[in-house]
Amino acid sequence: VRRYTITLLPGDGIGPEVISVAKNVLQLTGSVEGIEFSFKEMPMGGAALDLTGVPLPEETLLAAKQSDAILLGAIGGYKWDTNEKHLKPETGLLQLREALKVFANLRPASVLPQLVDASTLKKEVAEGVDLMVVRELTGGIYFGKPRGFSTNENGEEIGFNTEVYATYEIDRIARIAFETARKRRGKLCSVDKANVLEASMLWRKRVMAIASEYPDVELTHMYVDNAAMQLVRNPKQFDTIVTNNIFGDILSDEASMITGSIGMLPSASLGKEGPGLFEPIHGSAPDIAGQDKANPLATILSAAMLLKYGLGEENAAQRIETAVLDTLNRGFRTRDIFSEGNKLVGCKEIGQEVVKSI
Amino acid sequence: VRRYTITLLPGDGIGPEVISVAKNVLQLTGSVEGIEFSFKEMPMGGAALDLTGVPLPEETLLAAKQSDAILLGAIGGYKWDTNEKHLKPETGLLQLREALKVFANLRPASVLPQLVDASTLKKEVAEGVDLMVVRELTGGIYFGKPRGFSTNENGEEIGFNTEVYATYEIDRIARIAFETARKRRGKLCSVDKANVLEASMLWRKRVMAIASEYPDVELTHMYVDNAAMQLVRNPKQFDTIVTNNIFGDILSDEASMITGSIGMLPSASLGKEGPGLFEPIHGSAPDIAGQDKANPLATILSAAMLLKYGLGEENAAQRIETAVLDTLNRGFRTRDIFSEGNKLVGCKEIGQEVVKSI
Ligand SMILES: CC(C)[C@H](C(=O)O)[C@@H](O)C(=O)O
Ligand SMILES: CC(C)[C@H](C(=O)O)[C@@H](O)C(=O)O
Repeated sequence: VRRYTITLLPGDGIGPEVISVAKNVLQLTGSVEGIEFSFKEMPMGGAALDLTGVPLPEETLLAAKQSDAILLGAIGGYKWDTNEKHLKPETGLLQLREALKVFANLRPASVLPQLVDASTLKKEVAEGVDLMVVRELTGGIYFGKPRGFSTNENGEEIGFNTEVYATYEIDRIARIAFETARKRRGKLCSVDKANVLEASMLWRKRVMAIASEYPDVELTHMYVDNAAMQLVRNPKQFDTIVTNNIFGDILSDEASMITGSIGMLPSASLGKEGPGLFEPIHGSAPDIAGQDKANPLATILSAAMLLKYGLGEENAAQRIETAVLDTLNRGFRTRDIFSEGNKLVGCKEIGQEVVKSI
Repeated sequence: VRRYTITLLPGDGIGPEVISVAKNVLQLTGSVEGIEFSFKEMPMGGAALDLTGVPLPEETLLAAKQSDAILLGAIGGYKWDTNEKHLKPETGLLQLREALKVFANLRPASVLPQLVDASTLKKEVAEGVDLMVVRELTGGIYFGKPRGFSTNENGEEIGFNTEVYATYEIDRIARIAFETARKRRGKLCSVDKANVLEASMLWRKRVMAIASEYPDVELTHMYVDNAAMQLVRNPKQFDTIVTNNIFGDILSDEASMITGSIGMLPSASLGKEGPGLFEPIHGSAPDIAGQDKANPLATILSAAMLLKYGLGEENAAQRIETAVLDTLNRGFRTRDIFSEGNKLVGCKEIGQEVVKSI
């Protein structure tokens, strides 16, 4: 048997519910595929703040670094929203990404035939959408310095951040994006604001330079405002999108909503070496936490990405993906993706159905 | 008669066609309403680059400053896309906004019953959408310093920009937004990324402070990634949105595409004093330039905003808006908003129909 250590970070809100279901799915998949997982559950986000006073305790980070992969539920909630910056759950997540050096965030957004009605877009616009956003995750305005508060020459308070990219940061994310596009339909669209921002001008220059290593991939460029429009107008035009941290934050969320089923969408955050971080793209949904209403499929599919991208266990990943589709085909739906004629079930029950399908 | 001087900046691509139509509409409206316009046409954008070597010639800026309002067509085109920054058409537009100090950009996005089918969103999601994006236009990362290119400690090239806001900049745009919301449905949503960016934290703090002056307006806050999602999920939840320059660029374009008719959407850019700048939100569409295919209604409606917000001529503005609706009701459509059962016409002809309606 192959053995892996997985750090589980349930986090806040619906996080613990969806992680518990995904853990069962991983465990069973492992036993079928000859893989033994040892799970280590650690506090993170608001849960860690309440317990230890910080959003990312040292023990949590250490456990994460020493494991083979990390599966995160969700973090954040009203309770901590007014905390100072270093005491926000979100800060813990940013610290984790930075410490793990997971610079490449892969966010697939595809419309499953079973769920095309869940999109607010017309059927003919939504059906067949299958795109991947490759977001730079450890640079740009999220981490750039200087940042903070100060006063200007008139004695007025100012708040400021720095959007900054160095060539090596752009080059490495561009390569991941070209590799990703190559394994998909061979089309890469780089999104920037090079008509205004110097950071974007360098971005575009480097992406064009790296393109020469991938003559088989068709590269296009698009301004971010136009990309936000084109995702609504005709999302099918996109295969792989690569963009910076903040534009990727905005566009990947927009793309996910276009599929109509953000309760279904996983993500992977990868570095050069060391464990990857895998998490559903949805938030902690404090309003439905603890009510067994959450959709665990995004976390289950994140576990599949963990197997594929984090551990190279492609067969096991495939098994989970097939089981999720099978569960949908058998008509099981959580509240967020429910439509007439299907069976409405809770978080635990749809998890059990996925387990049956495996 | 009241007399006004209007600077016309046709610009590039379809700009000249739509400006010429809008000028006729203004002229006729004026003669009916007892207003005399004197128009001054000046080069700007790519057209100015070709003519004078700079995207915003001094004479153009001077004429603009000395007039009562400015109507702009569109700028930009492939031809100048690879120009250096100071020789880009876009730079001319940014210089114009800065020089005129038009810090408040009003971008309405509403779905007309006549055009609900043009949206890619399902009818029940799109119909009744009527929102206004108030975008800060002369600050933030568009203008923040330091900016440029440099090398980091490893000798690698970096590109950087500064996102920065001072209290006075936030306060004045917040007031415009609260005033706008008050005249609409009394709801204001402020969009930021205050869970990550210091500039956004100050933004949120000041918007909350200004809120005490407007107890009758209901204020909410939303993170920009969530806003990008909510615009797709349920755009009807929004009345007035206020946000910074770059988020406003992205979200207003997304919102405009949600209406499905960006050929219909006007915008106004206003300062504390001095002339306002009015322009359609669409681009220069070089692919259809000179073919009489462009939709001039966005520019005609921008002329209506010019009358209302720029000159205080509410009756004349109302007359134009009514004429545009009447033209649509009589079934005239340009290519971009055409649907079965209507009459397909070109730029000039739909302009003539609006003139008839006036
Ligand atoms: C929670 C927040 C800091 C985070 C981000 O902005 O990156 C989230 O929106 C995401 O996209 O994972
Ligand atoms: C042309 C460009 C500089 C401009 C902007 O980014 O502001 C445009 O996209 C707009 O929204 O008016």
